[in-house]
Amino acid sequence: MNSYSEGKIQAFQKKNENRARFLIKCPDQPGIVAAVSKFLYEHNANIVASDQFTMNPEGGEFFIRIEFECPDLKEQVSKLETRFVPIAEKFNMEWKIMYVRDIKNMAIFVSNEPHCLLELLWEWQSGDLMANIALVISNHETAREMVESLGIPFYYIPANKDIRHQVEVKQKQLLEQYEVDLIVLARYMQILTPEFVGHFENRIINIHHSFLPAFIGAKPYERAYQRGVKMIGATSHYVTNDLDEGPIIEQNIGRVDHRDNGEDMKKIGQSIERSVLARAVKWHLEDRIIVYKNKTIVF
Amino acid sequence: MNSYSEGKIQAFQKKNENRARFLIKCPDQPGIVAAVSKFLYEHNANIVASDQFTMNPEGGEFFIRIEFECPDLKEQVSKLETRFVPIAEKFNMEWKIMYVRDIKNMAIFVSNEPHCLLELLWEWQSGDLMANIALVISNHETAREMVESLGIPFYYIPANKDIRHQVEVKQKQLLEQYEVDLIVLARYMQILTPEFVGHFENRIINIHHSFLPAFIGAKPYERAYQRGVKMIGATSHYVTNDLDEGPIIEQNIGRVDHRDNGEDMKKIGQSIERSVLARAVKWHLEDRIIVYKNKTIVF
Amino acid sequence: MNSYSEGKIQAFQKKNENRARFLIKCPDQPGIVAAVSKFLYEHNANIVASDQFTMNPEGGEFFIRIEFECPDLKEQVSKLETRFVPIAEKFNMEWKIMYVRDIKNMAIFVSNEPHCLLELLWEWQSGDLMANIALVISNHETAREMVESLGIPFYYIPANKDIRHQVEVKQKQLLEQYEVDLIVLARYMQILTPEFVGHFENRIINIHHSFLPAFIGAKPYERAYQRGVKMIGATSHYVTNDLDEGPIIEQNIGRVDHRDNGEDMKKIGQSIERSVLARAVKWHLEDRIIVYKNKTIVF
Amino acid sequence: MNSYSEGKIQAFQKKNENRARFLIKCPDQPGIVAAVSKFLYEHNANIVASDQFTMNPEGGEFFIRIEFECPDLKEQVSKLETRFVPIAEKFNMEWKIMYVRDIKNMAIFVSNEPHCLLELLWEWQSGDLMANIALVISNHETAREMVESLGIPFYYIPANKDIRHQVEVKQKQLLEQYEVDLIVLARYMQILTPEFVGHFENRIINIHHSFLPAFIGAKPYERAYQRGVKMIGATSHYVTNDLDEGPIIEQNIGRVDHRDNGEDMKKIGQSIERSVLARAVKWHLEDRIIVYKNKTIVF
Repeated sequence: MNSYSEGKIQAFQKKNENRARFLIKCPDQPGIVAAVSKFLYEHNANIVASDQFTMNPEGGEFFIRIEFECPDLKEQVSKLETRFVPIAEKFNMEWKIMYVRDIKNMAIFVSNEPHCLLELLWEWQSGDLMANIALVISNHETAREMVESLGIPFYYIPANKDIRHQVEVKQKQLLEQYEVDLIVLARYMQILTPEFVGHFENRIINIHHSFLPAFIGAKPYERAYQRGVKMIGATSHYVTNDLDEGPIIEQNIGRVDHRDNGEDMKKIGQSIERSVLARAVKWHLEDRIIVYKNKTIVF
Repeated sequence: MNSYSEGKIQAFQKKNENRARFLIKCPDQPGIVAAVSKFLYEHNANIVASDQFTMNPEGGEFFIRIEFECPDLKEQVSKLETRFVPIAEKFNMEWKIMYVRDIKNMAIFVSNEPHCLLELLWEWQSGDLMANIALVISNHETAREMVESLGIPFYYIPANKDIRHQVEVKQKQLLEQYEVDLIVLARYMQILTPEFVGHFENRIINIHHSFLPAFIGAKPYERAYQRGVKMIGATSHYVTNDLDEGPIIEQNIGRVDHRDNGEDMKKIGQSIERSVLARAVKWHLEDRIIVYKNKTIVF
Repeated sequence: MNSYSEGKIQAFQKKNENRARFLIKCPDQPGIVAAVSKFLYEHNANIVASDQFTMNPEGGEFFIRIEFECPDLKEQVSKLETRFVPIAEKFNMEWKIMYVRDIKNMAIFVSNEPHCLLELLWEWQSGDLMANIALVISNHETAREMVESLGIPFYYIPANKDIRHQVEVKQKQLLEQYEVDLIVLARYMQILTPEFVGHFENRIINIHHSFLPAFIGAKPYERAYQRGVKMIGATSHYVTNDLDEGPIIEQNIGRVDHRDNGEDMKKIGQSIERSVLARAVKWHLEDRIIVYKNKTIVF
Repeated sequence: MNSYSEGKIQAFQKKNENRARFLIKCPDQPGIVAAVSKFLYEHNANIVASDQFTMNPEGGEFFIRIEFECPDLKEQVSKLETRFVPIAEKFNMEWKIMYVRDIKNMAIFVSNEPHCLLELLWEWQSGDLMANIALVISNHETAREMVESLGIPFYYIPANKDIRHQVEVKQKQLLEQYEVDLIVLARYMQILTPEFVGHFENRIINIHHSFLPAFIGAKPYERAYQRGVKMIGATSHYVTNDLDEGPIIEQNIGRVDHRDNGEDMKKIGQSIERSVLARAVKWHLEDRIIVYKNKTIVF
């Protein structure tokens, strides 16, 4: 990490040392909010933001994200987590408390089109992407210079479908060594094995260069041009073992017309890809995303 | 009200007979959510949706909108409202409970451009605008036929700045007679007196045909054309005594280019005006808007 | 046609009695613009607007749309058309001259969701859709009242896949009787036979309620909800015999999130459908669309 | 210029060695297109793209931009320019021919917010901004490292209103030394003197961080927050001596809501500023913009 970003991160951690995020998923039933908010109040925590959602009001699933401030949070942590257990059991909750000062370690995978990587680096440098970019892994050398110039380790690991297994062994070693929490596929043009994907469930974010479910798979801009669409798009999603079928986090489009050939569409699309991926990564880092079945709830 | 819309409204009321909305505004402090959610839980109310906001986290203002279901709401109403008083006093709350089955009475004022009126009538006919359109008042006869064909009373009241007072006396009589809750100025090109505005504080919604604060006042499209802007817009806001300065509810824009003259801009703009006004009216009817100083919180 | 719209149309025809549109398609080669513009100049025609496009500059296809004013156009017509023949032959052109005063006859087909029909009627009434709405055909009675109240003939023809042939016989009789130039399927939920489609090549415009090529076929909103997309869309296209595969004219999207269920998506989508269809129809009426293979050039 | 970009520029020049752009402005009259297209045809030039506009059809102004290919353009240049003079005189034209291989020299001025500068550098590196970024001038040292790392000269010239004259003397020396064609104010927070502006008429592009004409002058995001607007915007325009009143080239907006404070608006706005400025610069570099009175025609 270069000293500039280090400074930004430290300031952010200092400012948020008493802030945490509560994420809860449970069957809907009366009394959840009352129980959780009473619990927080009794532990001197002040709710700063709260967002909830009931999927299918009758007999459905309840989701809530609460951001709170709690004096001396560091000392309170274990107490909070222990004491919440009976409530969680009563309501049959899946839950976690995330501490804002715990900056996530992120790996970026990229092939030879660097625009999405550049966007992430740009947001990170300007302090808008609060993560530790631990390393960049690529099957091309294209991005080495720009990555290393920012003090971020760059690993070149050639890849193709025949050596997939060996490649992933090396990648996993690095991911473990750097204690990576989140993998971002910033236009990484290799398919991952089910084993690899399973190991990082809901922790791999991909950007696909079409408005899914249209143009799943290879060469979406070319196919968009062939079809004569009047807009192109991009989709960020968590990676599952069904190609381009994982839970969608964010999508957007841009207008094109008959004057735009495949190459033009690609250029227009790149700027959409950049912002759609950056938003998804940011939301993940802020613990705003809950995955439920094959969908996301983005608070 | 025509029989078609009457049927839609009755179905809606039946479906929502146990649903209410809680709107609260108070100084921020710990324990508010705990107290309110405990109160609701103890009265068998289930929170269906909840949205909150703290303006300026340190020493700021707290706002919450809770939508809840409560069995036998009709019988519970007075109990709920009475018993909540001590909590409200403790936290120094401004609050109200709105019952979803209580459909609001709405008056629409229009001059001779009917597009915004038409949009509201269209949304209303299709059951997307849950209000009782009690009457339409106009200083032109243009809209009479389309209004009356839907079974809505239409009143033609000629108006100009010299007879403003007499005009408003007549208008107020009608508004009282029809027990109007909300006035929508759907391109009504007359200025209202401070007395009239004061009487309906935060209950008059206007559509202005520019992206405010640009082009306040008359002929915004002409001025937009003169200035050579590359987009035009519309703004819906609550009416105050400062022309086009009231709390903004919603805004949007559309792109224009050098080929669009003032007349083209007007046509492009009309479609923006329609949707921006319709959204604002819908949000008001759903009790989603809290006015604070000169701003709106739209939940 | 009601007297109000009749007046608007007559005024438009009067204003445009000397205006025409030249549409040309031919293999790209030097000298086309020079030849055409010289021809127009020599016939006292002034070019008011001109838009051209070369698909695939090397060895490609050339398209141009020229709007021009020509004094005494009525008298010039046959001369213009005859004298242009040698030029057209030299450059191997497909071409036509459309006279703006020749208002097109339009039929609207609708089933039981009237929002797209209503939008077209609304635009037509306000003088923004310069067509003669000759008749409305529906397999439901839903829209009869609103159509007839505007003085437009309404024909109820029940339809289902077993009686497709008989239904189309009746429809074709009506279309011939009213000398229909353009058929708009404003959410008409019946599939047309290849014979019918072939008879009206590039003269049937459909609105599909998804961003094609995603969600081809039935129930796109339900499938969009199931897939967990973050935006929904609509596509207007010319009808061919491949379901939802015809040349796309216009598309747009609206954002949705996890709170929007299938029903909400439908409501958000309807407003997108309305504007996407209305734009496509307007462009067709203004002779702005050239179909080339399975794509449209929209000038 | 670094070697990477140098390579891209050379490839672009090679590809476009026979391509030029014709820009013409004259009083509207019959025969202009015929005369110009005949002229080009007779000089073996093939029209690749053509865009024209008549402002105010009756007795108005005519504008056209023609992009053409001409074999051996280098040798033809002087002949073309000489022989066109009689035509230009006949129609009273202002005109110029721009040769695509003549890459423009561009200076970027920046203060201490580097996001717009970064966007331009990013687009330039990826070959999407076809200019020679000759130098960057700043009244802060913030951007030095990122600029110099790309091989672009960086000049730190402290500035404030008391030393405006001396500052501009130094700046002008540099601009002359580097033969600068275009100055981009990429969030340069100093006002330029009328003398300086006059010297670079229609060759200084500024980005203002609001949707003009709203929030002219200082601190637009703060004022937008105070006003409670529901969207913020950015505007790129040519600089004139009336602050933020010059011809608008491009504008766009982003949505905000009550949760966004001034700081949030600034972050959302920065991404709008980046794209709005980059588009304007690109259009200028491609000779797409004609300034007429206080407006732009963007072809």
